[in-house]
Amino acid sequence: MKALVYKGPGQKALEDRPIPVIQAPDDAVVKMVKTTICGTDLHILKGDVPTCAPGRILGHEGVGVIETVGAAITTFKPGDRVLISCISSCGKCEYCRRGMYSHCSTGGWILGNAIDGTQAEYVRIPHAETSLYPLPDGADEEAMAMLSDILPTGFECGVLNGKVAPGASVAIVGAGPIGLAALLTAQLYSPAEIIMIDLDDNRLDVARRFGATQTINSSAVDAADHVLKLTGGRGVDTAIEAVGVPATFELCESLVAPGGVIANIGVHGKPAQLHLETLWSRNIAITTRLVDTSTTPMLMKTVQSGKIDPTRLITHRFALDQILEAYDAFGRAAETKALKVIINAG
Amino acid sequence: MKALVYKGPGQKALEDRPIPVIQAPDDAVVKMVKTTICGTDLHILKGDVPTCAPGRILGHEGVGVIETVGAAITTFKPGDRVLISCISSCGKCEYCRRGMYSHCSTGGWILGNAIDGTQAEYVRIPHAETSLYPLPDGADEEAMAMLSDILPTGFECGVLNGKVAPGASVAIVGAGPIGLAALLTAQLYSPAEIIMIDLDDNRLDVARRFGATQTINSSAVDAADHVLKLTGGRGVDTAIEAVGVPATFELCESLVAPGGVIANIGVHGKPAQLHLETLWSRNIAITTRLVDTSTTPMLMKTVQSGKIDPTRLITHRFALDQILEAYDAFGRAAETKALKVIINAG
Repeated sequence: MKALVYKGPGQKALEDRPIPVIQAPDDAVVKMVKTTICGTDLHILKGDVPTCAPGRILGHEGVGVIETVGAAITTFKPGDRVLISCISSCGKCEYCRRGMYSHCSTGGWILGNAIDGTQAEYVRIPHAETSLYPLPDGADEEAMAMLSDILPTGFECGVLNGKVAPGASVAIVGAGPIGLAALLTAQLYSPAEIIMIDLDDNRLDVARRFGATQTINSSAVDAADHVLKLTGGRGVDTAIEAVGVPATFELCESLVAPGGVIANIGVHGKPAQLHLETLWSRNIAITTRLVDTSTTPMLMKTVQSGKIDPTRLITHRFALDQILEAYDAFGRAAETKALKVIINAG
Repeated sequence: MKALVYKGPGQKALEDRPIPVIQAPDDAVVKMVKTTICGTDLHILKGDVPTCAPGRILGHEGVGVIETVGAAITTFKPGDRVLISCISSCGKCEYCRRGMYSHCSTGGWILGNAIDGTQAEYVRIPHAETSLYPLPDGADEEAMAMLSDILPTGFECGVLNGKVAPGASVAIVGAGPIGLAALLTAQLYSPAEIIMIDLDDNRLDVARRFGATQTINSSAVDAADHVLKLTGGRGVDTAIEAVGVPATFELCESLVAPGGVIANIGVHGKPAQLHLETLWSRNIAITTRLVDTSTTPMLMKTVQSGKIDPTRLITHRFALDQILEAYDAFGRAAETKALKVIINAG
């Protein structure tokens, strides 16, 4: 089968690989229909993710059709359409039983990282009954592919951790796909203001079309000052960090109101300065989270009911044998205006 | 009247001052009975608190008797015994109406800071009806004096923010009065383990007597390693920072379990390093808070019912005219073994 393989820092190739087989009774092998590329795949390609060894098939998102199931599987059968969660979870360990699937002792984010992933014609999914979701009848496969990672990540790490609430003020720092996913899902809770901050005017235009009430290009103005002006000097109730560098995290520290929350989504490679000399008395919370995808079924219902249309995040479509072009378009997003790219594998 | 006055960095004096008078209809003047010294008073004396100008009478804790009341006061009358909250609150502004009294727009921590405080024979209390609590019949005045600041601070900033829960593991970094107040109040929620970490063996002995299940002298062993060993490699569900320097905050970062909380109590003068490169994916929360004293009535009931005995924190007693000696004993706590000192003002 064709598969996109990580060959070491800066290197990748579309290769022929054997079709995966069942290795454990709770495995399933899924024939991929749609997959996509995540910012995290670019982190791997930079060599930033030591758990991902050269030779690994990348990808942790997508929808497909069950091809074969292990002996222990009772809830899926060949032919079932499924959504693949970016988080594999056994459902049995202490973390899983607390609903913290991201920290499953034999799972978590392993797909396209510690085990072969979804940017291929087939993928083996461990702990299949607790790592796959059946697709609702009539569900749009491209919309559902946005529920593997990006939508639950924006929602759980940004919106839920950030305690976005009716009437609240929200700032989202970073209008890339993950910031826009937070923007789309934040509106489920009817905040009064959603201020989107980015360096890219195109992405800020998209953010306005997606429901941002204010946008700030932080290359043009002092974003913290501007947010304080927009909020009567108080700052925002929720600041969502959707970039992953010290400067954007520290910007969140300077624009959160007393009693507010900084909800981190960004994947960070370096420490940030935590300004406790001002924040110690401000009654704030800072949260971090690797997505648990515990809200995936709920998000499926919001999509099926038309409350959210995640296909608005999709800008480009490619066939699997064009995946190197897809990576190129996704990696040069400022020029290509790419947000999410769909790879048609089936 | 006699009053302890801040005279600028490193300087204080016991002086004669006029007895305060009612300035606003919602003021009360209280004749002090018992007051105490807080670590924050030492911060002021180091020159670390710019809102406190030389000439200020220090102190933000204590119990007393109502002397006179302003025209708007209906719930207190001269002769009533009252507890003075370290937080003054109008009860009317947006923050007060959300229960965030610490950020009252005309109050907050102003006593012994922006206005004259309680280390005197009399004190004027603004917004008296929402800044004083009536003492329960038969209440011990020394026990109640511990409810002005230290007990609600340990409880709200440490225990409540830290989500201490039955069966949970808790580490408290710093076994000074505030860490010990967190230790006493944490036991209201029956955690499985409370690990106390300090540099001072005497304070760790006290902590064991107060209910710590484990103690670690961090000058002798690597505290983070030791906590990981005690918790099967996971870390603690709640790490309470009760010192206020970067090293102790960063220690909390290294011993919190996935899904855990770092609850900051310490008053910080410098930023800390926030190790987002490891914490971004660990599903943790960090909280800060200036005490709101919203739990003071509840804590009064726990004291009155005998569930907590805050007089265990009291090691020394002085008359008001010995207050310079009291500061000396409190300031040299490692030698004098002082925790809280009571100043008898009445």
